[in-house]
Amino acid sequence: MYIGVIGAGRCSREIGDIAEQVGQEIARNNAVLVCGGRGGVMEAAARGASSEGGTVIGILPGADRREANPFLTYSIVTGMGNARNAIIVLSCDAVIAIAGGAGTLSEIGLAMKTGIPVVGLQTWQLKHPEGRIPGIIYVEDPREAVQTAVKLAETKHNTAYA
Amino acid sequence: MYIGVIGAGRCSREIGDIAEQVGQEIARNNAVLVCGGRGGVMEAAARGASSEGGTVIGILPGADRREANPFLTYSIVTGMGNARNAIIVLSCDAVIAIAGGAGTLSEIGLAMKTGIPVVGLQTWQLKHPEGRIPGIIYVEDPREAVQTAVKLAETKHNTAYA
Amino acid sequence: MYIGVIGAGRCSREIGDIAEQVGQEIARNNAVLVCGGRGGVMEAAARGASSEGGTVIGILPGADRREANPFLTYSIVTGMGNARNAIIVLSCDAVIAIAGGAGTLSEIGLAMKTGIPVVGLQTWQLKHPEGRIPGIIYVEDPREAVQTAVKLAETKHNTAYA
Amino acid sequence: MYIGVIGAGRCSREIGDIAEQVGQEIARNNAVLVCGGRGGVMEAAARGASSEGGTVIGILPGADRREANPFLTYSIVTGMGNARNAIIVLSCDAVIAIAGGAGTLSEIGLAMKTGIPVVGLQTWQLKHPEGRIPGIIYVEDPREAVQTAVKLAETKHNTAYA
Repeated sequence: MYIGVIGAGRCSREIGDIAEQVGQEIARNNAVLVCGGRGGVMEAAARGASSEGGTVIGILPGADRREANPFLTYSIVTGMGNARNAIIVLSCDAVIAIAGGAGTLSEIGLAMKTGIPVVGLQTWQLKHPEGRIPGIIYVEDPREAVQTAVKLAETKHNTAYA
Repeated sequence: MYIGVIGAGRCSREIGDIAEQVGQEIARNNAVLVCGGRGGVMEAAARGASSEGGTVIGILPGADRREANPFLTYSIVTGMGNARNAIIVLSCDAVIAIAGGAGTLSEIGLAMKTGIPVVGLQTWQLKHPEGRIPGIIYVEDPREAVQTAVKLAETKHNTAYA
Repeated sequence: MYIGVIGAGRCSREIGDIAEQVGQEIARNNAVLVCGGRGGVMEAAARGASSEGGTVIGILPGADRREANPFLTYSIVTGMGNARNAIIVLSCDAVIAIAGGAGTLSEIGLAMKTGIPVVGLQTWQLKHPEGRIPGIIYVEDPREAVQTAVKLAETKHNTAYA
Repeated sequence: MYIGVIGAGRCSREIGDIAEQVGQEIARNNAVLVCGGRGGVMEAAARGASSEGGTVIGILPGADRREANPFLTYSIVTGMGNARNAIIVLSCDAVIAIAGGAGTLSEIGLAMKTGIPVVGLQTWQLKHPEGRIPGIIYVEDPREAVQTAVKLAETKHNTAYA
């Protein structure tokens, strides 16, 4: 099972702690963590997973492997910039969005479009309670995020772009 | 100048009318209309632009040109599925989002990430007034949408994925 | 009809003259010229086509439109590096390879894989007469190249990657 | 270290045996085997590597993980058709081409363009001895292929598309 973690390349310490716990939980569930391979939320989640002996695959936007963070088990070099977001999403059975900005929003959209479940942790929850993006399953803590993602991953139906 | 129109492959008659008017305005401003090349909002906007003698470029997701709608002046065949959304966005100086679902959301995210201005018409305005996506310039009608897009296009700074 | 011209980003004056004539012939046949949008053979062919009032679409590898040569009618900004070679090929009904190096070789392979006819002018003809790449239709001059490409384009069957 | 194996999706038993031995050698050298994830040469190499306890990453062209062969340790789902060839190449420190047709030729071209060393085993050796593709290092057997690839991988300079 492949669980994605999507989030910004820079993040606060608080968000980094959450991402790290999500990574740890993914590893404890024996799932492969897929991410964009760079800093911030991606790096924190990768660090968490690798600290638990998990496998982390980073799908890099640039054409040079050296942009990878140091906690990846394997890196894929796409040279495609943000178009690689579509690959991250297609390669996952479910994704967990943690905070994040525009890039994360694009991955949320791509996942929803492709039928990949999206679990949200402090992500794109707009100011008002009704300002939630329909289609994201909002949860409260890292453990719940991973449990929800694992459960959804088991039943997802990938519709690709059709 | 290249103005993108992003929106769903199926739409109501009301949204189709809006998209058609947006297409007409883009042509009247002598801008090239870029879209995903398929049905719904994309087709309505293409029809509008071509009715005014404008140029429409459709960037198709599939590997077969025959999926193009009949109002494209030129079609680009990517064979890349939703990853082509990144190309649509990069090829525009500004984009106008009309209604739309998950695919449109991904394009909004990609545009914002890349520094391409996003103008919104009845798009992703969540239930509550505070449920608007920061970064979208929401407008009320087709003419205002195109005028705003043209103005922003003249000053945009494309930051690619850096 | 879309005819591609593939070749290196730098070329000799002799090869540039050939590419320019190919571009002129494509325009005279009312076909759209598709190329990679940069210098060398691409620029010479684009110059030829535009001098005859033809349309040239350049599919750029980088994320910045300013890398386009000055003879494109329209440019598509992919931000995908050499992966854009697959888009060039898919967007054509036939391609003409003029001289060229490794990038051109990749486009020849992609075209053959996808069922797009490849016409060759002084391209990848290895030292010995038997050192020709099976699948390329080798021709002797620009006019013959375009006539052959147009004829093949009318009957090609795009098999995509299936 | 990442070593790619490129070759056709269908192959003779003889070529399959060679690919399997190449896969075994890659695993014995503790390198990760990267391939296109499907049948023929890709599957035979993957089977060889996994029989030696090696890691195999398959970078799939389609949008559905189920097209993977059964010997992959991990699969990346690109949904990009042959454009994924560019990702295979960028993700490797060296590639070994085994026999192969048009798709393999495209990967050879992409690798050469990107500065990734290409080692050839019974690949694109045209009928005449002078009909070899300049830039491929032709070798005679699986062990020599992997040793050469490993040596070249240590010194390669990835120039991306610049």
